[in-house]
Amino acid sequence: MRSKRMYFNAFRMNCVTHMSPGLWTREDDHMVDYTSLKHWTEFAKLLERGCFDAVFLADVVGPYDVYAGNRDATLREATHLPINDPMLLVPAMAAVTEHLGFGYTSSIMQYHPFTFARLISTLDHLTRGRVAWNIVTSFTKSAARNYGLSNLPDHDVRYAMADEYTRLCYRLWEESWADDAVVKDKQRGIYADPRKVRDIDHDGEYYSVHGCHICEPSPQRTPVLFQAGASERGTAFAAENAECVFVIGANPQVAGDYARTVRAKMANFQRRAEDVLCFAYMKVITGSTEAEAKAKYEEYLSEVSYEGAMALLCAWTGIDFSHLDPDQPIEYIDTNAVRTVLHSFTAGDTSRRWTLRDVARFVGIGGAGPVLIGAPEQIADTLEEWVAQGIDGFNLSYATLPATYEDFIDGVVPVLQRRGRMQRDYERGTLREKLFPGRLPRIEAPHPAAACRYPGAV
Amino acid sequence: MRSKRMYFNAFRMNCVTHMSPGLWTREDDHMVDYTSLKHWTEFAKLLERGCFDAVFLADVVGPYDVYAGNRDATLREATHLPINDPMLLVPAMAAVTEHLGFGYTSSIMQYHPFTFARLISTLDHLTRGRVAWNIVTSFTKSAARNYGLSNLPDHDVRYAMADEYTRLCYRLWEESWADDAVVKDKQRGIYADPRKVRDIDHDGEYYSVHGCHICEPSPQRTPVLFQAGASERGTAFAAENAECVFVIGANPQVAGDYARTVRAKMANFQRRAEDVLCFAYMKVITGSTEAEAKAKYEEYLSEVSYEGAMALLCAWTGIDFSHLDPDQPIEYIDTNAVRTVLHSFTAGDTSRRWTLRDVARFVGIGGAGPVLIGAPEQIADTLEEWVAQGIDGFNLSYATLPATYEDFIDGVVPVLQRRGRMQRDYERGTLREKLFPGRLPRIEAPHPAAACRYPGAV
Repeated sequence: MRSKRMYFNAFRMNCVTHMSPGLWTREDDHMVDYTSLKHWTEFAKLLERGCFDAVFLADVVGPYDVYAGNRDATLREATHLPINDPMLLVPAMAAVTEHLGFGYTSSIMQYHPFTFARLISTLDHLTRGRVAWNIVTSFTKSAARNYGLSNLPDHDVRYAMADEYTRLCYRLWEESWADDAVVKDKQRGIYADPRKVRDIDHDGEYYSVHGCHICEPSPQRTPVLFQAGASERGTAFAAENAECVFVIGANPQVAGDYARTVRAKMANFQRRAEDVLCFAYMKVITGSTEAEAKAKYEEYLSEVSYEGAMALLCAWTGIDFSHLDPDQPIEYIDTNAVRTVLHSFTAGDTSRRWTLRDVARFVGIGGAGPVLIGAPEQIADTLEEWVAQGIDGFNLSYATLPATYEDFIDGVVPVLQRRGRMQRDYERGTLREKLFPGRLPRIEAPHPAAACRYPGAV
Repeated sequence: MRSKRMYFNAFRMNCVTHMSPGLWTREDDHMVDYTSLKHWTEFAKLLERGCFDAVFLADVVGPYDVYAGNRDATLREATHLPINDPMLLVPAMAAVTEHLGFGYTSSIMQYHPFTFARLISTLDHLTRGRVAWNIVTSFTKSAARNYGLSNLPDHDVRYAMADEYTRLCYRLWEESWADDAVVKDKQRGIYADPRKVRDIDHDGEYYSVHGCHICEPSPQRTPVLFQAGASERGTAFAAENAECVFVIGANPQVAGDYARTVRAKMANFQRRAEDVLCFAYMKVITGSTEAEAKAKYEEYLSEVSYEGAMALLCAWTGIDFSHLDPDQPIEYIDTNAVRTVLHSFTAGDTSRRWTLRDVARFVGIGGAGPVLIGAPEQIADTLEEWVAQGIDGFNLSYATLPATYEDFIDGVVPVLQRRGRMQRDYERGTLREKLFPGRLPRIEAPHPAAACRYPGAV
């Protein structure tokens, strides 16, 4: 039996510090070049050389201000602030690549759906169908305040908004233009047939649109859909809508459980398990030998910023740990909930006594997720253990730029290719066809977007 | 005395038919390639070879549906529909050029100002300060309906919104981060100094933002500001805010009058006449001889689409001319207002009797503005007449792509360069420094954006 191939995305953000606080200060690191177009075009070319499936761009639209109740550490450490828009990197990276996919995060708080649908269609045209959207609802109060809301809407309200937002986008992408609406008939002087373009009339709870989609159909129409909801409501949303899900799990079992949960719920929506790919967060530190990889790891670990890690950890958990003694073992913390939260960031490692500082360092190097350290063969072995648990691919984060990706591409990728675990060349077609070989460029039933298809279309 | 140099932008839209309805059907035309990234990167390289200052991208966010009360002709003729987003072309064109500027139109209806300010800052970083914003308020009811509004807000309300929108953007761009906020101190591990980043707290009539700008300062901070308001309120807005204005005038006198009107009003805002550059709309049909140019013009004119021109003309005037006999002289039209409007599109040419069909053909080839036809020396002579009326530069539209620009760049540009009327190479620095040599990258007092500057900054 042929081995199942693994999928790889590079996991980044359009900012300095993503998941390795403090390491931007290394002399050999290029994180501070995030404002440079060349930095990103070179990065895209590197990934395509390494046969990566896509670059996956995270995003937040509000600063982290939970640690010490302010954003001071966030600014000092450049942890997701300052942060530029991720979508605008896509056209430049697309111009220098042929196959690489581009997934980017866009919060429903950020754009009116009419604007957003047009942006995606434009990108899908320009990239010839290589775009994916990571659907998020924003989790910070600071994001809500930036958009003039006094409070972040409740979790369930945010998902209700996301339901309406995505449906409305599906309608704009799928329902407004018939497949044969654009005729480009130079003889008769007809570009599009007006009888085959229809209005979307939507008056909902949160949004209203009356008009046709103003972009002609793009190769994929609906972009490849990513989602990473972890709650009861979030996994249901993913089961209904996502073509790719993303999980940060400390070990293969945890990540695999997430994949199984989403897949089990897919049946509720008449979708099959193979209709979704599950990507696990991963960081890989490798070198020509295990000893070299371990030495790198120790060096990086010694350079991690405690304050930067705390800025991230407090934002993600919503708990301000700034009043705790960093060197007290966390088992002595008197609040059970706080102990539990901090233990969840220790990857279940009970072989040692963890202090808050240990947790911060661990988060600082891992970025809330697992770190694999070893020679390329060892890394490949471990990745196979993850795949055995139902994981399809990885969103690879970095410790330093571009070294972490260069090390992986030059060291681990050839090993995986020899094992038949990684593509040596790209499939033809759109990102959807590359991720799901044998399928069509457009999303298929029973996905809810397909149900929006222009009436009468096959 | 050294001749004043002329400025040139290429005037386009991210769609098939911009200002020459029907000509997309020519076998040698490339308008239908607007969805291709390569089409735009090649275009940008052509413009930079021709020493153009910028590409200026117009936009609309609602279909034209005045002609015959529907959008049928608009779709058949692809007149500004389908239309992709213009902003997303900028990063790709920036990646293949070094000096070309990028002005794009963004309606205040399209983005929340917090989102928009971030998009501009991101582009200004990626282009190293080559971005300009053309501020518009949208004029079609269809745009309002696309954004869930039952009606287009009144003209004055739209300008009140534009006032608040721009002020809020100025504050995000100029006031939130001190010049020395970003220190990038690798020794001390400090990226930004939190004491030098402040919140913008704005609760206005139409918008609300509470938070800091999430982008660090870009080269220009506030982009170069274009505006094209023609009404009493519009010219006041331009006089206060614009660094470049744009006018479609049938002849040098009309365009010059507009420039003089705006400049006269600038005194009300303590601004000097030289603080604004006035760009006139222009289409140039040239060839190696006058006869060759005239032959091209006649050929193009014969290919213009009546219906496409009517779709544009009716949308711009807000009047549905579809019930009129195309071949009746317009002087016989019984409504004075309609006659007046149509006459305004005839460039004051009373040497012949105009029918609606004549007007449509004239609009179809000119796109509501003047067309210069002749050998390169003749074109240069006429452009100098415009400059003598106080016009600083031109937004050059096209008849066909890329021929109109190639003809101009290979024919007229060398003539203008020999006369000292066009740059042979680019000035250094940002777009603002290129357009206003000797000035700083950032907007200067007494512009209202400069008044927003971070307190204590010089």
